[in-house]
Amino acid sequence: MRIPRHIGLIPDGNRRWAQDNGLNKQDGYYYGLNPGLAALKLAQEYGIDEITYYGFTTDNCKRPKVQIESFVKACVDAINIIAKENVSLLVIGNTKSSVFPKELLKYTTRTNIGNGGTKVNFLVNYGWDWDISKINVNSSDRRTIMDCLHSRDISRIDLILRWGGRKRLSGFLPVQSVYSDIYTIDDMWPDFTPEQFHKAMKWYNAQDVTLGG
Amino acid sequence: MRIPRHIGLIPDGNRRWAQDNGLNKQDGYYYGLNPGLAALKLAQEYGIDEITYYGFTTDNCKRPKVQIESFVKACVDAINIIAKENVSLLVIGNTKSSVFPKELLKYTTRTNIGNGGTKVNFLVNYGWDWDISKINVNSSDRRTIMDCLHSRDISRIDLILRWGGRKRLSGFLPVQSVYSDIYTIDDMWPDFTPEQFHKAMKWYNAQDVTLGG
Repeated sequence: MRIPRHIGLIPDGNRRWAQDNGLNKQDGYYYGLNPGLAALKLAQEYGIDEITYYGFTTDNCKRPKVQIESFVKACVDAINIIAKENVSLLVIGNTKSSVFPKELLKYTTRTNIGNGGTKVNFLVNYGWDWDISKINVNSSDRRTIMDCLHSRDISRIDLILRWGGRKRLSGFLPVQSVYSDIYTIDDMWPDFTPEQFHKAMKWYNAQDVTLGG
Repeated sequence: MRIPRHIGLIPDGNRRWAQDNGLNKQDGYYYGLNPGLAALKLAQEYGIDEITYYGFTTDNCKRPKVQIESFVKACVDAINIIAKENVSLLVIGNTKSSVFPKELLKYTTRTNIGNGGTKVNFLVNYGWDWDISKINVNSSDRRTIMDCLHSRDISRIDLILRWGGRKRLSGFLPVQSVYSDIYTIDDMWPDFTPEQFHKAMKWYNAQDVTLGG
């Protein structure tokens, strides 16, 4: 079976799930924590090298304050859970803003946890515009372009899994995702099941990867 | 009905269609010409302001020579067909390469044809890396970032329609597509039907557009 080397996860649908379950919108993010760990464990079982989670973006900070506080806390909690595993952890995002959680600053250079292992990247206060704002190359040298990105330590993504039914990237690593295969799960992120992940892997195995050729 | 202001078309599947119909791979592109005009007419009926076609890319030029000659000719023919309509036509791509058809140079600044009208953009020898190679802004000023792109005269895309069943962007205008809704048609591009277009419009109407908020 052809396994993606690097997968991106867009864990969307937390607010809709909360409403569907009689909760306030901001209460949904908490129920996304267990799925985050479950996804990491599955990725490790498959032998996936690298996994990038879409935490929150500068655009998400247009949401009401009570939601911002909730998803920021959920990101911190999720990363603390992941930081108990054997991973190589990296947090990427605009640290200059007050919304960036200071307790995550220590992970903004790649850090081996335990024995190290799977590369886990988490986007926290990320912005596609912030990411690509300093590219100045004389030719279409892709390696040099990658080196100009704020997200330069995150490699090209083979497969993106998006929960919550939307079929869009929402600004997720536009350079690393140029040739990513995009698989959408209609269920909301807190309704994560291993079966969704297995189906995504089977689907990816059936895709051809031509990179334009 | 909520209509997308700007749609992108990725007309994929020409080579697979050719093989399925007992032809050589390079013979499929010719059968994509009528669909190109049909899509434009439908877009005009819906009142869509702008439409961008993914012609060919620098990555496509890794294909065998006989295929390159075929898709380059098909792009020239497609643009000549479109240039008989009342449109505002723009061709964007790396003109410095010998593969760029010289007969299309005259369209590399936006040109009103007839009475002008729908903005039609065609990507010819386009490369996502070439497009973003000169961005140097001091802040995440999105307007300034857009002005740095080679594709600066192409606006943000609301909806991307991709024929040929693949669920990926393949380097298609990474900045303009950050929030695009992506609709995949499983049929190959030469098997274009108006019904596929109508279904895409209905699907788009059912999406929410949150832009991260």
